[in-house]
Amino acid sequence: MRAVVYAGPNKVELRDVPEPVLKAPTDAIVRVTMAGLCGTDLHVIAGDFAGLEQGAVMGHEFVGDVVEVGSAVQLVRRGDHVMASDFAACGHCRPCLRGDHWQCAERAFFGTGTSFGPALSGAQAELVRVPLADTTLCQVPPGCSDEAAILIGDNLATGWAAVERGGIKPGDFVAVIGGGAVGQLASLSAQAAGAAAVVIVEPNEARRQFAQRHGSLAATPEEAAHMLRQITDGEGADVVIEAVGSSGPLQSAFHLVRKRGNIVSVGAHADHAWPFDLARSFTDELSLAFAIGDSIRLRQHLLRLVRSGALEPTVVVDARISLAALPEAYRNLKAQRIMKAIVLPQL
Amino acid sequence: MRAVVYAGPNKVELRDVPEPVLKAPTDAIVRVTMAGLCGTDLHVIAGDFAGLEQGAVMGHEFVGDVVEVGSAVQLVRRGDHVMASDFAACGHCRPCLRGDHWQCAERAFFGTGTSFGPALSGAQAELVRVPLADTTLCQVPPGCSDEAAILIGDNLATGWAAVERGGIKPGDFVAVIGGGAVGQLASLSAQAAGAAAVVIVEPNEARRQFAQRHGSLAATPEEAAHMLRQITDGEGADVVIEAVGSSGPLQSAFHLVRKRGNIVSVGAHADHAWPFDLARSFTDELSLAFAIGDSIRLRQHLLRLVRSGALEPTVVVDARISLAALPEAYRNLKAQRIMKAIVLPQL
Amino acid sequence: MRAVVYAGPNKVELRDVPEPVLKAPTDAIVRVTMAGLCGTDLHVIAGDFAGLEQGAVMGHEFVGDVVEVGSAVQLVRRGDHVMASDFAACGHCRPCLRGDHWQCAERAFFGTGTSFGPALSGAQAELVRVPLADTTLCQVPPGCSDEAAILIGDNLATGWAAVERGGIKPGDFVAVIGGGAVGQLASLSAQAAGAAAVVIVEPNEARRQFAQRHGSLAATPEEAAHMLRQITDGEGADVVIEAVGSSGPLQSAFHLVRKRGNIVSVGAHADHAWPFDLARSFTDELSLAFAIGDSIRLRQHLLRLVRSGALEPTVVVDARISLAALPEAYRNLKAQRIMKAIVLPQL
Amino acid sequence: MRAVVYAGPNKVELRDVPEPVLKAPTDAIVRVTMAGLCGTDLHVIAGDFAGLEQGAVMGHEFVGDVVEVGSAVQLVRRGDHVMASDFAACGHCRPCLRGDHWQCAERAFFGTGTSFGPALSGAQAELVRVPLADTTLCQVPPGCSDEAAILIGDNLATGWAAVERGGIKPGDFVAVIGGGAVGQLASLSAQAAGAAAVVIVEPNEARRQFAQRHGSLAATPEEAAHMLRQITDGEGADVVIEAVGSSGPLQSAFHLVRKRGNIVSVGAHADHAWPFDLARSFTDELSLAFAIGDSIRLRQHLLRLVRSGALEPTVVVDARISLAALPEAYRNLKAQRIMKAIVLPQL
Repeated sequence: MRAVVYAGPNKVELRDVPEPVLKAPTDAIVRVTMAGLCGTDLHVIAGDFAGLEQGAVMGHEFVGDVVEVGSAVQLVRRGDHVMASDFAACGHCRPCLRGDHWQCAERAFFGTGTSFGPALSGAQAELVRVPLADTTLCQVPPGCSDEAAILIGDNLATGWAAVERGGIKPGDFVAVIGGGAVGQLASLSAQAAGAAAVVIVEPNEARRQFAQRHGSLAATPEEAAHMLRQITDGEGADVVIEAVGSSGPLQSAFHLVRKRGNIVSVGAHADHAWPFDLARSFTDELSLAFAIGDSIRLRQHLLRLVRSGALEPTVVVDARISLAALPEAYRNLKAQRIMKAIVLPQL
Repeated sequence: MRAVVYAGPNKVELRDVPEPVLKAPTDAIVRVTMAGLCGTDLHVIAGDFAGLEQGAVMGHEFVGDVVEVGSAVQLVRRGDHVMASDFAACGHCRPCLRGDHWQCAERAFFGTGTSFGPALSGAQAELVRVPLADTTLCQVPPGCSDEAAILIGDNLATGWAAVERGGIKPGDFVAVIGGGAVGQLASLSAQAAGAAAVVIVEPNEARRQFAQRHGSLAATPEEAAHMLRQITDGEGADVVIEAVGSSGPLQSAFHLVRKRGNIVSVGAHADHAWPFDLARSFTDELSLAFAIGDSIRLRQHLLRLVRSGALEPTVVVDARISLAALPEAYRNLKAQRIMKAIVLPQL
Repeated sequence: MRAVVYAGPNKVELRDVPEPVLKAPTDAIVRVTMAGLCGTDLHVIAGDFAGLEQGAVMGHEFVGDVVEVGSAVQLVRRGDHVMASDFAACGHCRPCLRGDHWQCAERAFFGTGTSFGPALSGAQAELVRVPLADTTLCQVPPGCSDEAAILIGDNLATGWAAVERGGIKPGDFVAVIGGGAVGQLASLSAQAAGAAAVVIVEPNEARRQFAQRHGSLAATPEEAAHMLRQITDGEGADVVIEAVGSSGPLQSAFHLVRKRGNIVSVGAHADHAWPFDLARSFTDELSLAFAIGDSIRLRQHLLRLVRSGALEPTVVVDARISLAALPEAYRNLKAQRIMKAIVLPQL
Repeated sequence: MRAVVYAGPNKVELRDVPEPVLKAPTDAIVRVTMAGLCGTDLHVIAGDFAGLEQGAVMGHEFVGDVVEVGSAVQLVRRGDHVMASDFAACGHCRPCLRGDHWQCAERAFFGTGTSFGPALSGAQAELVRVPLADTTLCQVPPGCSDEAAILIGDNLATGWAAVERGGIKPGDFVAVIGGGAVGQLASLSAQAAGAAAVVIVEPNEARRQFAQRHGSLAATPEEAAHMLRQITDGEGADVVIEAVGSSGPLQSAFHLVRKRGNIVSVGAHADHAWPFDLARSFTDELSLAFAIGDSIRLRQHLLRLVRSGALEPTVVVDARISLAALPEAYRNLKAQRIMKAIVLPQL
């Protein structure tokens, strides 16, 4: 089958690879009808995560049709049109029962090497093997488009995780650092959760304009602190979401947050000794939390918001392409020429 | 001064009455620059509450300018442009400290007789005496119109109280029974709090259309249960808000709510032996709660939502009139020819 | 096998009945090593619930050893020592995913007729068939006694449900109406959740003394309102739990609760037109909620509290008997000569 | 009057100083009948905070009798027996209304220099001037001992703040790093809030024994991680409270917390570039929050728990001394020969 694979640092290629087969009775094989390209994929091919072998199939966002299920799969059936979480989890261990599927001991993250569990071949391909299918997959319900389902399975779950872990309440003033797909979806999530106002902090003018068209205020990094003070009578943001995934933007969050406010980071970080201002954090009673979207737990909740029209995440999609065009899309995403690409393997 | 007073069952008149004077060191006198007419005023003149004497000045919603303060008033000053809660409270007793100002032992409700504390002359007048002024009043901040301030002081606080006491969370499906000003503001509040969808249940077609123009779905009482089942995959509303204040609509809430759902009533009730279906409520694990808007506690929160533009309550105002026109407005409100009248005493 | 069966109104008998067999691939057969006798069993044989046939095996509380599993059962295995929820649920429908297993469309309640789902033979027997075994059962973990597991599967889950649905917070004053096993466990739960004080309201002196030995205050129904006013500076209980299951005690809850307080009923009710004081509930902003313990969702949580020693529910057990002695225990429970009987079928 | 004053680095002396006088109409003068010695006092005389002048009166914990009030003071009166918050706040600004009195723009912290607002003379003296008396003071109610009132005004509020900011829920496993008065009170608070178990991590054996006598487990820093894994089936603590106030113990918190767990620090910190493990915090979705006890907001809540007997904080008091003996007590506290000293100025 055709698939987009890792081909060395910062490089991907379309190749023919063997079709996946069932390995465990809880597996399913899904024919991918739609896949996503995520900013995390750029981290992956840049080598930020361990254990990715050349030739590994990329991609952790997909929707498709079930073509085969293992003997122990009970909730999805051959022929079902399904959406997937970006990672697999068992659904019945203690963390899973608590609603922390990301902390499941059997977690495996599609197409990202071995940093987050055993290597698992990705979904930027015609077919994908899905472990723990009863938990990892669910039917796409009526009223949810496939593009929305792709987003619920990853980026929107991340955006909502920021809202949840940051404790955003109706009436809060929120800053979102980073205007990529995750930042924009975090902003839409914060708005849906009742934020009084959201300011997206982003150097790219087109992304600021996008934010403004979709209910946010927008500021350059230089303008952000001033704008937040203005709209909050001088206090600063109740919650700041860092959606870039590097330590510079995280540092800037401390200039935007109000006293006793919360900072939440949904970006991926690699630094082990980041200089943290304990004295200031103590005096101002700050909090700093990290969140990874649990697309299994949040799925039902996000489906309600999406199906009712209260939340329309697909506005971030600005490229719909074939597998053959996907390597080029990696470059376009890196250059911020696109925000979110959807891949249609049958093209 | 001129004031609209109670003139016998279901009757109000414009009269000349003595100007109010300070009675306690914590009092203030406010020149009313804007007052509101509320559905509760119709209950008051219908005799639903005790102890209203003929000649009593009506009205419990107002904004104005402070003209005199008692010696113990510290937070408002002569000349301040202030908004008021619909009732006075001390701010420092145990219920007040807990955030239940309505349960304050010194509570007094403007222009409503003696059912809810000692009689207190109302605000449909040129001047009004305000007890416990430091708590009852606050400055109208920049970015909040006087009409919005009137609504925050009563109807919007009631609408938000429904959201709060009903436990509405982002993603919830909400039904609001009654499309008057409080019902519409409860709907706007539920939307601002992240409801997936709100259905206003209302026989009056114009009010249903108003709801639809402002983000809600709308249904007649006959259509409501079917519509809710449709949008909730057959489950029913997570939360039903009863915003009419009679037992019939409250009964109908039980047909709209899902199993383990919440019903919250913000209407005024007088029935002492309403037949309640214990067996059904037990089997379906329902909850029924009552809430009266605490416009003192909720004031800061609602100001954030209003000043940021996240919540625009003034859309419900459809009549702006003089004191002289107010008796006619009582009749128009009763006949549902208007939804919310704002009174400008200086006209 | 031997089992205690329904033998007509208010009558049970020990009989020989056929052994259960697997009916669905998700079933398991469990050899009962310990069963419980619950106050609900008295309601059942009194005919309060529909569809109980003569000869039906009674009992919905058990611990045992798995002797056989259907082909689709994955999480429990032959030989496992398991605890059970008092009802079966699927674990993957929308209510189950929301944590409302009691509202599962496949719910079946052991040994209680057809009021709460299809008839399902009970556990006061040597063997019991368990539908949806992966959800209904779980291993008894180290550090949890079988008696504690019996209680977690029903009565303690009910007690904790009262705490949860009543919104009990640290520092709350709580009244519990009814000093049977559920009331006492509700009291222990409220204490474990940080109640400032709990008053058990109970006419039976021995049960009041039991309460006092286990961390509660106790009052007769006549003394209760006075005692609560005394310990709350005149306000009344923040939360009142009704743990009897008839309308008289529920009525009395309204005399004990403070303004803006919560009443929660965990008793079973059959009345369809109970006279409810709407006027008072409105003025005092009360709430009334109903809760049935979800022993599936609460299981992990209760296991933590029990295994750590923070909650010791087995103090309520005051009879450990054989199956042959169980019919007599029904009479003793009804006469309040015992509080909680544990049945050991191997005796 | 006699007072204990700062006399240069790590030195205090008993001296005669001028009596305080009213400076603002919102001030009160209180005759101190009981004062406290706090670990923070050691930080203060060590020079950890700015702006402390030689001769400044130390101490921020006190109970006493009001001897004089300014003209604008309304809620306390001459002769009242009052408890105090360790800092003064206005009670009506936006942070105060939100319940963040510590962030009040008029905040002043008794006896600690100018790091936390304008210099304010302390309470280890016969008399103390209390700014913003209506908010800073409240009557000591019946059922609350003076020693308990001292603790509610500072250390217990800090302990409870950890519970609150750390999000401790019933059933949580909690580690407390540091077995001084604040750590022990954090443990008692966590227990009162329903923790399944608390482990106090402390090298001092006497303090570990104290913890064990008062409901906690205890471990040396070396044993802690192992003990927590044992009692949590290998997961680690849900919440770790750092109650020492230096960066080493805070670092160790990261070895004790479970994935997706919370760390909360109630210690004072001075480090501006502490090396923080971003990569680990991201992968394990940790949170780190800082909290300073708001003894004004928490006062009513803590009084309920203390007056009902649910929380008995005075067990930490192990020295009751005169003002003259207080300089010696500073040394004893530093050497951990005592845990909490209460000062009786009339001795």
